[in-house]
Parts: sequence; structure tokens; C-alpha cells
Amino acid sequence: MSVFDQFSIPPSSRSLERDIQHKIDTKTKPPGSLGVLEVLTAQLAKIQNSLTPSVDHAQMIVFAADHGIVDQGVSAFPQEVTPQMVGNFLAGGAAVSVFCKQHDVALKVVDVGVNADIPAHPLLASAKVAYGSKDFMLEAAMSSRQLEQALVVGVNQANAAIDSGVNLMMFGEMGIGNTCVASCMLSALTGMSGEETAGRGTGLSSEGVSHKAKVIQASLKRIEIALGKPMASWSAQDIGEQCGGFEIIAMAGAMLQSAQRGVAFVVDGFICTAAYAFAMKIQSNLSDYAIFAHQSNETAHQAILQHLNVRPVLTLDLRLGEGSGAILAYPIIKSATVFMTQMASFADAGVSDGQ
Amino acid sequence: MSVFDQFSIPPSSRSLERDIQHKIDTKTKPPGSLGVLEVLTAQLAKIQNSLTPSVDHAQMIVFAADHGIVDQGVSAFPQEVTPQMVGNFLAGGAAVSVFCKQHDVALKVVDVGVNADIPAHPLLASAKVAYGSKDFMLEAAMSSRQLEQALVVGVNQANAAIDSGVNLMMFGEMGIGNTCVASCMLSALTGMSGEETAGRGTGLSSEGVSHKAKVIQASLKRIEIALGKPMASWSAQDIGEQCGGFEIIAMAGAMLQSAQRGVAFVVDGFICTAAYAFAMKIQSNLSDYAIFAHQSNETAHQAILQHLNVRPVLTLDLRLGEGSGAILAYPIIKSATVFMTQMASFADAGVSDGQ
Repeated sequence: MSVFDQFSIPPSSRSLERDIQHKIDTKTKPPGSLGVLEVLTAQLAKIQNSLTPSVDHAQMIVFAADHGIVDQGVSAFPQEVTPQMVGNFLAGGAAVSVFCKQHDVALKVVDVGVNADIPAHPLLASAKVAYGSKDFMLEAAMSSRQLEQALVVGVNQANAAIDSGVNLMMFGEMGIGNTCVASCMLSALTGMSGEETAGRGTGLSSEGVSHKAKVIQASLKRIEIALGKPMASWSAQDIGEQCGGFEIIAMAGAMLQSAQRGVAFVVDGFICTAAYAFAMKIQSNLSDYAIFAHQSNETAHQAILQHLNVRPVLTLDLRLGEGSGAILAYPIIKSATVFMTQMASFADAGVSDGQ
Repeated sequence: MSVFDQFSIPPSSRSLERDIQHKIDTKTKPPGSLGVLEVLTAQLAKIQNSLTPSVDHAQMIVFAADHGIVDQGVSAFPQEVTPQMVGNFLAGGAAVSVFCKQHDVALKVVDVGVNADIPAHPLLASAKVAYGSKDFMLEAAMSSRQLEQALVVGVNQANAAIDSGVNLMMFGEMGIGNTCVASCMLSALTGMSGEETAGRGTGLSSEGVSHKAKVIQASLKRIEIALGKPMASWSAQDIGEQCGGFEIIAMAGAMLQSAQRGVAFVVDGFICTAAYAFAMKIQSNLSDYAIFAHQSNETAHQAILQHLNVRPVLTLDLRLGEGSGAILAYPIIKSATVFMTQMASFADAGVSDGQ
């Protein structure tokens, strides 16, 4: 029995579907004129099975880990930046920190596998599976046991947040080298080549991107030999163990558990989209619960979003990670609930509906 | 001497340009990774000539008026909806009302020419130029005197707000029929045909759009004959008088005065973009001060934004007007100032900058 068998996600409720659309259409505006906000509020109303959806209790959880694949020279920044940036999140100086503060959203950082000891801090959850994954061009990134542990970290974090009343989960990540990990996982999940999934990450040159693509291709070749089966038949477990990252697996676990408990979650950028695609291989009803924050500037992100048939809220040329795009999208998601719950109807306001 | 000669807008300051870029680039993030937010904060810093730009004191002003052109059957809603929606703004039930409340932004409604008497209200400024403009398919929409009055309404509103400490002006509009007015003004300003500038507005059928395009073409023909000169040589004054709307002219005045006083302003959707294009014909340095909130679903908006060579913050398929897109973009614009003023630098945070 696989660790993934614990998830059994129901589709979001359709019992109020007609009432939800009626409420949207009788607000004092031309039908459909709030565009994406109407889609978002209908999604949230179905998830919460309520005509008054709320995202007032949002939480941002940033999962952090390191990656052995950095030994292959796939990042513009050195690995020591992972714990340094974790420190910056905790001290309130990072982008995700200041945007969470702007929107009064609680921030939590989870060390799932940073290659350094991080001093205790009220905002930090220590749940280290290992001091980084292994170099997946040479060997499996993690053991079955570690994959399970990382997934459970995410499940536990989602449970703790939801138990405390959180009604919108937002996820971010930190881990030098993790665009390479995400690209490799996405290649394995979608069949796209390393050339298609590799991008600039935090700022590689075109030579760097080309090298990264070669590292991904070599890794996929190694995995194919190690597993003794073609890529199309790799399981989620295979992909997680062979080329996963601890923060990405943990985030997938948190997404699955959020959905299982009927709570919407926000997918940040490229790396979070890889976590989502991985989680979708486990339980595809997950899609009912996901809100995509933004389309980043990372080369493959647009193609992957199209592959997943999803439309993000924002397109701001971000390529920072950390959950920064998710928290930037938060006020728009909140506006979707605000119009649903606070706007007057034509009848309330005595406005002619033009019929 | 024209009423437009009062404006003499300087370009925004370049004295801090290098310091601004240096500050952006030393924040704890890969260079350029906050995308559009970096562009926005640089623009605001230049406008305010400050390394700590702020938009904390924002104000939304919604200009409302009616339009004689509705006699030609160019709107899906009846004219009585204009005062009804003004009442809805004042009562707090409209989209712009609830979003302003969400973001703690003061809302003011200015009656520049609604075809009804509106009872006094603390949020209402009564500055009626007339009970609606005239039907511009048949005659000039307004007199020279009325054009001047409407423009001055906007100037005075901008002055009052800026005198009270407002550092970001946001504009919206209400006026049944005003997408037709905006389309006609934009045709006159850009040379695009009525077929190119006419769109669905609040919800016309394709037959309705086609009829609207014909009304615009007929109006442009009438104006050409009345002025006795080809469209390319029409002045701003000609266009304003012949096919302007009071709320659009007032908004153009408010934009010009905001810029003249060195204050950034946010352009909402299609109709506000027409006001901007009109104001640009008067003073093109205006562009330094404008932030475009969103690309709406109104057919011609994308083409006009491209014509103006501007990139909006959001694309949410909105087509509501009221300033709703501007206020939805506000938290993103604020985030641009938040990252600039609150994020740690590499040196502050002890993070390796990867150089």
C-alpha cells in the first residue's frame, strides 16, 4: 500500500451551483462583467458549499529544502542562500514577508530539508527529513521512507492550519536549485523534454539554461535505466523518489490534504505548479480546490499552465518564488468573496436590471 | 487662448533614477524578479522624487454623467440606471464601493451631468454642467463653455484631493451609453473606425455592436461636415465639444491636474482610457504619471492600450467600469511600494547576492 492511498478527495459540492450563479447574476452589474472574479467566487462557494464564501483566514506556508542537484551547477546562487533566505523570511525582510504583512496574513516557514541547522524561531516549523536531497543525476533523490516523511510534513501542516480555522491555504517554497528539480519532475510528469522545461530560474545565462536542460535529460536517462521502464509508466512514487525535492513533496502533501479537508489552496509559481502537477498524478479531483496565482516569467510555466488547462489570476512577470505571487493574488481572491457577500443586488438597490 | 493652455506638465524627475534602480537591485531577490512591481515602484519613485514612494493616501473619484447619444439605442441598460447606480455607489452597494471599503480607500462621486437630480450625500459632489450631453449623431455634444466647465470640475476635484494629502488618484466613471461616447472619441483621436472601436459595453448583442458602430460612423461624418475639416486635423477642443461626455472630460481634467501637481493616477478601463487618450492630446508628458489598472474585455481596449504603448497591471476580463479595475489593482500598486520600502537588502539580511 502506497503512502498516497491515504487521499480520497471528493469533488467540490454542486448542490448550490444554481443558487451561486443566480446570486452572482443578480448583483448590481452587467452579467459576467466581473470576469475572473465571478469564476473565483463560484469556485470558492462550491468548495465551501456556501453562498457567502470567505477567505478571511488565510495562511502562507513556505516549505524550504536543499537539493543535491546543485552539485551539477544548475543555479545562479550558492546553496548557502537557502538558510540565509529562511532567516530573511523569519526576520520579516523577504518579499513574501512584507506582502504577508501588508495583507495581514500569517506566515510560517517549514524546514523540510535545508542543508543547515536553522535556529528555533516562532514562525519556523522544524521538520527536517534530511540535510538536502541527493544529486539525482547520479542516484535517487530520496528513499521511499523520506518521500513518505516529506509528504506527511505537508499533510500535518495543512491539518494544523485547517484545525486552527484557516479557510485559504497559500503555499510558497525556498530551495536553491529547485527550478531544476521542478523542471525535471515536470518532464517526468508530462513527457516534455529538458529543453522544454528548463528555464532561467533565479537568473541563469542562456548557456546555464542549456546546461540545466542537459542535466535534466541525463537525469531522466539515469532514472529510466534505474527503474527499467519507460518514462510514461513511472508512478508518482517513482518520480518523487527519483527526482523530487523535499519542499515540493511536502507542498504536494499539503495541497492534497487541504483538498481532502475541503479547503481551497493557492498555487504560486513554477515550482508550486510542479508540486501541483505531482499531486494531480495522485488525485485529480484536486483541481477543484486549486487557484492559480500567476503566470511567471520562468520559460516553461505558460506551457505547463496550458497543459494543466488552468488560468492564473495575475501575469506580472514575476520569477521570485517564495509564495510571492500567491500573496500578491490574495487581495484579488478576497475581492471575489467581497463582491459576492457585500455588493447589493438589483432588487436591494432599486436598480433596473436592463431586462 | 484655449482652456487647455492652463496645463504645463513637467516630465517626472530623473534625478534619483540611478539610486532608485540600485535600491531595487539590492533587495533580497534575483534582479528583475518582481517584474511589473519593479517597473511600478520605479515610476512612482520618479514621480514622487523619492526612494520611499508611497500610495498610502489613495482616493477614488467616480465621475458620473448622462449622454444624449443613448437616444440612438446604443446601450443595453436604460438611462435611469445612471442615477440609480450613483445612489448605489453612495449607499455602499456597488462593486467600486465594496472594493474601496476592502482597501480602506475613500470614495467620492461627482455628478458632472447626470440627467436627474441626485439628493445631497456626504460622498457626493454636485457639479452638474447640464442634464446630460446632447445626441452627437445630430449635433455637438456640448458647447465650448460646457467643455470648459466639465474640465474645471475635474481640475478642482484633483486639487481638493491633493490639497488633502492624496498621493495616488484613482478614477472611475458611470454613465449609461458612455462606452459609445468613448469609442467615438477614440475613433476621432486615433483614426480607428467605429467598427474597430465599438464593443459590447454592458452587454450588447452582436447586432447591437454593429448598430453602435454605424452610429459612431454617422457621428464622425456629421462632425466632419460641421467642422469642415478632416478628422486628422480635429483639435482636442473639437473632439471634446463634438462627441465628448461630461464625465470623460472631467476625468481628463483631473488626470491633467494630478500630473501637473506631480501625483500619479490610475487609469481604469476602456472609458477611462478614452479620457486618458483625450488628455494626452493636450499634454503628452501626462504619460509619466499614468498607471494602467487593467485590460478589460471591451473589444477595442487591447488595441487602444497597444496604440498608447502601455501595459496594464491586471487582465481579469472585467467590463464593469466604475473604477472597479483601478481599485482591484490598488493592492498590487501598493505592494510595489511595500517591497521598495520594507524589504531587506542583501547587505541588511546577510544574504549572498550570488555575484
